Amino acid sequence: MDEVTEGISTAEAYIESLRGRALKVYLFGELVADIVEHPMIRPSINAVAETFQLALQEPELATAISPFTGKRVNRFLHIAQKREDVVLQNKMQRRLGQLTGTCFQRCVGMDAFNALYSTTFEIDACYHTNYHTRFRKFIAYTQNHNFVIGGAMTDVKGDRSLAPHQQADPDLFVHITRRTSEGVYITGAKAHQTGCLNSHWLLVMPTMRLTDNDRNYAIVGAIPVDAKGITYIYGRQSCDTRSMETGDIDSGNAHYGGQEAMVIFEEVFIPNELIFMDGEYEFASMLVERFTCYHRRSYVCKSGVGDVLIGAAATIAEFNGADKASHIKDKLVEMTHLNETIYATGIAASYQSKPTLSGTYLADDMLANVCKHHVTRLPYEISRLAQDLAGGLMVTLPSEQDFRSETVGHLLEKYLKGRADVPTEHRMRILRLIENMTLGRNAVGYLTESMHGAGSPQAQRIQIARQMQLDFKKQLAKELAGIKKRQKDMLIKEISDYFGRVFDTNV
Amino acid sequence: MDEVTEGISTAEAYIESLRGRALKVYLFGELVADIVEHPMIRPSINAVAETFQLALQEPELATAISPFTGKRVNRFLHIAQKREDVVLQNKMQRRLGQLTGTCFQRCVGMDAFNALYSTTFEIDACYHTNYHTRFRKFIAYTQNHNFVIGGAMTDVKGDRSLAPHQQADPDLFVHITRRTSEGVYITGAKAHQTGCLNSHWLLVMPTMRLTDNDRNYAIVGAIPVDAKGITYIYGRQSCDTRSMETGDIDSGNAHYGGQEAMVIFEEVFIPNELIFMDGEYEFASMLVERFTCYHRRSYVCKSGVGDVLIGAAATIAEFNGADKASHIKDKLVEMTHLNETIYATGIAASYQSKPTLSGTYLADDMLANVCKHHVTRLPYEISRLAQDLAGGLMVTLPSEQDFRSETVGHLLEKYLKGRADVPTEHRMRILRLIENMTLGRNAVGYLTESMHGAGSPQAQRIQIARQMQLDFKKQLAKELAGIKKRQKDMLIKEISDYFGRVFDTNV
Amino acid sequence: MDEVTEGISTAEAYIESLRGRALKVYLFGELVADIVEHPMIRPSINAVAETFQLALQEPELATAISPFTGKRVNRFLHIAQKREDVVLQNKMQRRLGQLTGTCFQRCVGMDAFNALYSTTFEIDACYHTNYHTRFRKFIAYTQNHNFVIGGAMTDVKGDRSLAPHQQADPDLFVHITRRTSEGVYITGAKAHQTGCLNSHWLLVMPTMRLTDNDRNYAIVGAIPVDAKGITYIYGRQSCDTRSMETGDIDSGNAHYGGQEAMVIFEEVFIPNELIFMDGEYEFASMLVERFTCYHRRSYVCKSGVGDVLIGAAATIAEFNGADKASHIKDKLVEMTHLNETIYATGIAASYQSKPTLSGTYLADDMLANVCKHHVTRLPYEISRLAQDLAGGLMVTLPSEQDFRSETVGHLLEKYLKGRADVPTEHRMRILRLIENMTLGRNAVGYLTESMHGAGSPQAQRIQIARQMQLDFKKQLAKELAGIKKRQKDMLIKEISDYFGRVFDTNV
Amino acid sequence: MDEVTEGISTAEAYIESLRGRALKVYLFGELVADIVEHPMIRPSINAVAETFQLALQEPELATAISPFTGKRVNRFLHIAQKREDVVLQNKMQRRLGQLTGTCFQRCVGMDAFNALYSTTFEIDACYHTNYHTRFRKFIAYTQNHNFVIGGAMTDVKGDRSLAPHQQADPDLFVHITRRTSEGVYITGAKAHQTGCLNSHWLLVMPTMRLTDNDRNYAIVGAIPVDAKGITYIYGRQSCDTRSMETGDIDSGNAHYGGQEAMVIFEEVFIPNELIFMDGEYEFASMLVERFTCYHRRSYVCKSGVGDVLIGAAATIAEFNGADKASHIKDKLVEMTHLNETIYATGIAASYQSKPTLSGTYLADDMLANVCKHHVTRLPYEISRLAQDLAGGLMVTLPSEQDFRSETVGHLLEKYLKGRADVPTEHRMRILRLIENMTLGRNAVGYLTESMHGAGSPQAQRIQIARQMQLDFKKQLAKELAGIKKRQKDMLIKEISDYFGRVFDTNV
Repeated sequence: MDEVTEGISTAEAYIESLRGRALKVYLFGELVADIVEHPMIRPSINAVAETFQLALQEPELATAISPFTGKRVNRFLHIAQKREDVVLQNKMQRRLGQLTGTCFQRCVGMDAFNALYSTTFEIDACYHTNYHTRFRKFIAYTQNHNFVIGGAMTDVKGDRSLAPHQQADPDLFVHITRRTSEGVYITGAKAHQTGCLNSHWLLVMPTMRLTDNDRNYAIVGAIPVDAKGITYIYGRQSCDTRSMETGDIDSGNAHYGGQEAMVIFEEVFIPNELIFMDGEYEFASMLVERFTCYHRRSYVCKSGVGDVLIGAAATIAEFNGADKASHIKDKLVEMTHLNETIYATGIAASYQSKPTLSGTYLADDMLANVCKHHVTRLPYEISRLAQDLAGGLMVTLPSEQDFRSETVGHLLEKYLKGRADVPTEHRMRILRLIENMTLGRNAVGYLTESMHGAGSPQAQRIQIARQMQLDFKKQLAKELAGIKKRQKDMLIKEISDYFGRVFDTNV
Repeated sequence: MDEVTEGISTAEAYIESLRGRALKVYLFGELVADIVEHPMIRPSINAVAETFQLALQEPELATAISPFTGKRVNRFLHIAQKREDVVLQNKMQRRLGQLTGTCFQRCVGMDAFNALYSTTFEIDACYHTNYHTRFRKFIAYTQNHNFVIGGAMTDVKGDRSLAPHQQADPDLFVHITRRTSEGVYITGAKAHQTGCLNSHWLLVMPTMRLTDNDRNYAIVGAIPVDAKGITYIYGRQSCDTRSMETGDIDSGNAHYGGQEAMVIFEEVFIPNELIFMDGEYEFASMLVERFTCYHRRSYVCKSGVGDVLIGAAATIAEFNGADKASHIKDKLVEMTHLNETIYATGIAASYQSKPTLSGTYLADDMLANVCKHHVTRLPYEISRLAQDLAGGLMVTLPSEQDFRSETVGHLLEKYLKGRADVPTEHRMRILRLIENMTLGRNAVGYLTESMHGAGSPQAQRIQIARQMQLDFKKQLAKELAGIKKRQKDMLIKEISDYFGRVFDTNV
Repeated sequence: MDEVTEGISTAEAYIESLRGRALKVYLFGELVADIVEHPMIRPSINAVAETFQLALQEPELATAISPFTGKRVNRFLHIAQKREDVVLQNKMQRRLGQLTGTCFQRCVGMDAFNALYSTTFEIDACYHTNYHTRFRKFIAYTQNHNFVIGGAMTDVKGDRSLAPHQQADPDLFVHITRRTSEGVYITGAKAHQTGCLNSHWLLVMPTMRLTDNDRNYAIVGAIPVDAKGITYIYGRQSCDTRSMETGDIDSGNAHYGGQEAMVIFEEVFIPNELIFMDGEYEFASMLVERFTCYHRRSYVCKSGVGDVLIGAAATIAEFNGADKASHIKDKLVEMTHLNETIYATGIAASYQSKPTLSGTYLADDMLANVCKHHVTRLPYEISRLAQDLAGGLMVTLPSEQDFRSETVGHLLEKYLKGRADVPTEHRMRILRLIENMTLGRNAVGYLTESMHGAGSPQAQRIQIARQMQLDFKKQLAKELAGIKKRQKDMLIKEISDYFGRVFDTNV
Repeated sequence: MDEVTEGISTAEAYIESLRGRALKVYLFGELVADIVEHPMIRPSINAVAETFQLALQEPELATAISPFTGKRVNRFLHIAQKREDVVLQNKMQRRLGQLTGTCFQRCVGMDAFNALYSTTFEIDACYHTNYHTRFRKFIAYTQNHNFVIGGAMTDVKGDRSLAPHQQADPDLFVHITRRTSEGVYITGAKAHQTGCLNSHWLLVMPTMRLTDNDRNYAIVGAIPVDAKGITYIYGRQSCDTRSMETGDIDSGNAHYGGQEAMVIFEEVFIPNELIFMDGEYEFASMLVERFTCYHRRSYVCKSGVGDVLIGAAATIAEFNGADKASHIKDKLVEMTHLNETIYATGIAASYQSKPTLSGTYLADDMLANVCKHHVTRLPYEISRLAQDLAGGLMVTLPSEQDFRSETVGHLLEKYLKGRADVPTEHRMRILRLIENMTLGRNAVGYLTESMHGAGSPQAQRIQIARQMQLDFKKQLAKELAGIKKRQKDMLIKEISDYFGRVFDTNV
């Protein structure tokens, strides 16, 4: 970890920083020579680059003053000092969703940073370890360089009914295989790694609650993306190869896309100073729960993506000459109502943040789960309504090559004409964008990742169940029904847990 | 308006203050002698009294320091000085919903106070009138007395396709019929007047956008509830007469209820110093819109009522011995998810408040409408799920008189027994509470008033439509589709209206 | 069982037949002298009477030729000889729902008759008993008299985690307490007994799957409604006492209502010739499952009730002058779409009937469950939309006594006026009808009984789960995914169970 | 139209019949040499071939005896002689949906045949033309050959606010440009032409209600698919090029797919004997409405496709080791409930068929619209639930080439292992099938085509609105509310339109 005076400061510099790394990336069975120039990978890099661009253009929104360096740093690297910091993450996420129409891949790192910050503080308080100090140093280092951090949490898991140490193959969860005085070696694989290739460092973390027998799985550490022993296998997405075709219409959103890969660790080394947990298995669940608490309301980004889809639906209605119909307007209202529900529940979760022992603010876990649970449902309905407004042409439109063809291009120009004042090509472009977001490459992020990222729907229901305080509510009902006397002397400050936060007047 | 040093300070004093007034109240075709002692009216008084009780017990939540008197006043009389004030209204509302399981009737007055505060400020700025000064004086007066204020807005409206001045009968909207040097006389009727009898003053306001021809309808003024010329006709509610039967089981929630009445004004006098708008018709829509903006997110109270219903559903599941079934737990999670959606969208609307010219903070209008729109849907689904958990006995249960009867009471005791350790009476009580909230007296407030109060669903959709900024969203889509160049130079501060508030970093 | 040449032939004769019976009925702790004249009970009698009226007026719809008597009999007493008989039950049910707007109470008897017919056939085939012969004789007898049959199935159940014989109190399920050579004596109680007082005979049946230890609970028999030892305790319904007030507006639907009571049997005798099961416990589940199969699609009646509610909603929109608004029309379309879904799924279940061994046709169990499952959801949404169209006045409207009052009646007449050409009273009447159906007395039938009658939602989900043939569907998926070879030689006739019925070409 | 004694009798013969035709088909800007061998087109041919296969294997289901030839013919070419014929279409459609998991493309032709049969009958009755005779001859001809018929209805439409004759470019609707004594010449284009290339004949029809000025647009005729002057431009589908990659896993459903193309007619000749409407513009709406009536309930096929998706979801739950979780089972029940709703509403529409003047049976239009309206919603929810069960791996899975790769294949084999007894490849295959059906190639048919085929959702709402008989329903409500006297003398036979069919006892 060298010290620098100047980190990556522009989108261009960021892209430049990804070149020339000795990465082992496989795609379609081949080793990728240069990810920056690969037409199928580049859109995902562009999406991350937008986070650098926004920091320059809107520093209030996308940067903050670091307490560790005293300098203005990208908000994705910032540790939340106050509730407003948590709220501003959401606002930045919505804006980036609007600007890219896809997943910009940096939220996992941001949320992992914040969750690990308070967790290492509490491990140290318990065991007098010095993980927190190490981690603060690492944070300052990444802030100085303005690096992109990937959070590597989700193990491949194997048989889901078995704990890590019970698996037939011990590698199905990432674990320590060897120790030296300088550090540890880990082996295993992480699935669904969003933006991993576009990061500079990976923060490896356990994926679930661990027990005494899983001590070697209780490892957290930082690893450079191009470390020895890592293999990346690129994930397919619906319509992914369209970006490798000629032209830019059929891609729908030619410039931006998401990225998912599998990351395989084979005896990868982590030096001692980059280890932030090693064996304190009982803190694994704290780390995971705090991470998911932040991360579930990070899906507010989807309200920004939803803004794009609503805009696209309104545009195609206009291009089709149908925008005056009352049912069209009504569907746009419904889409907006649902989209703002995602935003509002996320903002409420962030606003109801409370400080942890480390001083960092943590979002409200109940409301974060309510937000994410909506994200597993509402984008699907918004998407359905967008398809309704788009019309069937979205899935019967011929290819751009036909449109550009000398032989039949004029026929498409003639017959795909909608309103006289709208170029046929514009109509095609907006239809392809809606296809991209509801069936194609970015539907992966807007729909399926909305379903499973940061935990599948049932994970939210379990978390809501844990916090719904039925006993408190039963007491309310029994009082009004005349079964129990009112607890007249119960003060707000005696109300604990979720309702303690709800009725906290220190807003 | 006399000055006092000590206002109403306890729930008991409040109830006492309602006695002995010369009110003309009709119910079942009869004049009511004393509303305080009427068994069908009393529960609604108890609900308001709870707002006094909470102020004593939880001053941080239910009171604030008045900038007009420098004293601690009930929050329902407070003018929001900062966004936190707007948020705390919601928290107080949820708590009172929990404590009463019904409508506690003071939100209209609170929201009218705040809306009128900023509107009179802007009228004065425009016309050099002195409504705002008058109104501040009136506010201080009510704060000193700790009075309950009813906001009388909804006219009976007659033929909805006609403006006030076009109606065959000019009285179908409240209007000035006569003027003297001391003041004005008004005639007309207001429907659906929540808690009017339980108030000390009525704030009469126009109900909709007015035009030049409606000048005499553009009247705002304060009137004592027992003013000469007012007739009240009490509204029926489902199961209302159960409170007049012997026993307290069948009422479900014997202690608390809502109140709706029609208020008829026949040549009622308003002195000049209590007139806060007179003829400035173009400000009617500002008043109405600001009122509904506050009031639509005031329905966060229903999340408190929802807490009671969720508690009741969980209790009956337990009493039936069914609380361990996975589908039961899952339904309680769903109810919670929906209930917290109401809370979260309301809180987000309050948190995204911005100051008006008068300095008072106004909630976010888009999110307030999203909140209210959920309130027109989600309590119905929560209610349906509560009925699912209750079982059919909720609607086939014999009367309390049968249960108390010497002849057949023992048969009910024997055969309505569920789990051995739960008294049959407890089971009956909780079933009656669920009936009360989903079909009976408080279903009026939890369901139908949730639908229509502060505007019916379509009113919210219109307001969402006005603010959904399709042009901004279309621009986003066109940029990503490659139809338009990105507005690279567009700064956050140039984004206006709703998205201006969303991306305002001054949180 | 005497023989007659002429049964009850008119609605009037039916009502007459209910007089002068020595019934022990308790209501509000008092013995009811004459149920026919009791204002709270009479509407339920009128609803049953409508089934006699329809039989006279529409014999094709509401009667059939009995194979046992060769005479035309009321369809409610008819055993389904062909699939068309099953379909016509649904059509009759929808029509009666339209004519009464409530529960007409005879479906349980009809469905019990049909289920018991085939079940006794199969018991006899197994054990060489003669229940079927006895039962056919009883059917002929009731057909000759044109009696109303109540099906008494639902026991009070006590602790739901225990079997009948395990209950602390053995009476919590109806069972045989004593035997003589002439017959048996039973004790216990049945809850939620729809229309029991309005019946002539009760058919007592077990409520669930039984085991060897429950032999004394495996009793089926017919009992006259006024048999010695029976006590009825009348169930309360929302707003039930409105029918005891003066006037007929506030009742909403003054003429028709449902009826639920608890029936308590204390040593009630059943003679041998009226016993149709005694100890053959393993046939209890067949009886219950066939009964629920018929009964779940009998809820098609709710589409008839829904027709009334849609009509009421359309009427109030017209009376309010709002019927031209596009969102109003759209909501009426949505209500219709949902309402017809109930009808269509029921009709499909009936149409896909197959013969039992006895020759009687049995509805399709999967589709019957799909129908009923919709009934637990869609009426709630239709009801919510009806409240949306009704407006808030539905729950703030003063009483009929106020409207009739000399003092304030004219004020209501003046101020509750909507469109000039619609009498204020008409507006009140239609609002009260919507209140009646969505909150009041008939909401019990339209909503809560829709939820729990014939089994609560989870019961349908269990039944759907049993029949969903996942293995067959997995095979389809595996073939298309290339995991398994296509079963090229699989013939339609080899497809069993539900899909066997789906692909049965003998339509 | 030559006569034959033997038509196409096997799937293989059908495929053979498509070879060697002089078709002008463009795809990716290139002329396609042989559609049968094109890897992207072939799956759509296989799907049609399945209709021939089923006819051989299940003649009761997939064939019928033709009244025109006296021979057994494919059901897709059969004119419905009785209601059972209409019902059996649905059962065949569900089975083919199960066998192909996609659109098998022959329903448009079947529904067009039936609609045109009765429409030509009525034109002839009105104008003494001989279209019906001609058409019967054509039917017999196609039956003898066992041809596949494509129905070409949907014009490209241009500006949707203008009638055909008002368009700037008259070709935006197909119309007659020239007449000779032998026949007519037509020009224009049809969009979204399902299975057109896989057909032998196209039946050209108008797409909407026409007026006097549109006479030249009122043309119906049969044209061989390879007629002179026709150009086909193939439509893109999500993930379409995967079928052109090596391997068969990533396609998801390698063997079957749908087909959509744009068909451009440039002076295409129709001889007199193949013209079935020419200028009788007022019958255009009858033709369109009858076609959509049949076609909207033809979407019952989606319940067969839904069976596959439910099977796939159940399989992946099992492969993931999660099939025992109660929420997983519950989601499968919900998917089944929704899927059977499509089936049941379709079956009810077919069962409630009534004869037209020509004797052919026509489905119930209200219920057909209810069925299709569900199809625009429920597959989206079923699809969302399938993605829930699939897990995120569905969209992050590497390519088949990586899995087959010597370098990294073993890593995927190791790390993508779920349950020990399930081959990794099987898990990949089922995930790809779910991707195919919810995002990929067959999502086009299962989702977007379900939305827009046979008319978009609003088209169904308009049709439901037309038939919902509000006056009849208002009368029901007014009677029960006491506003109007009951129409005691109204007989079932006097009830008209939709309710006439509902209450028709001739079932």
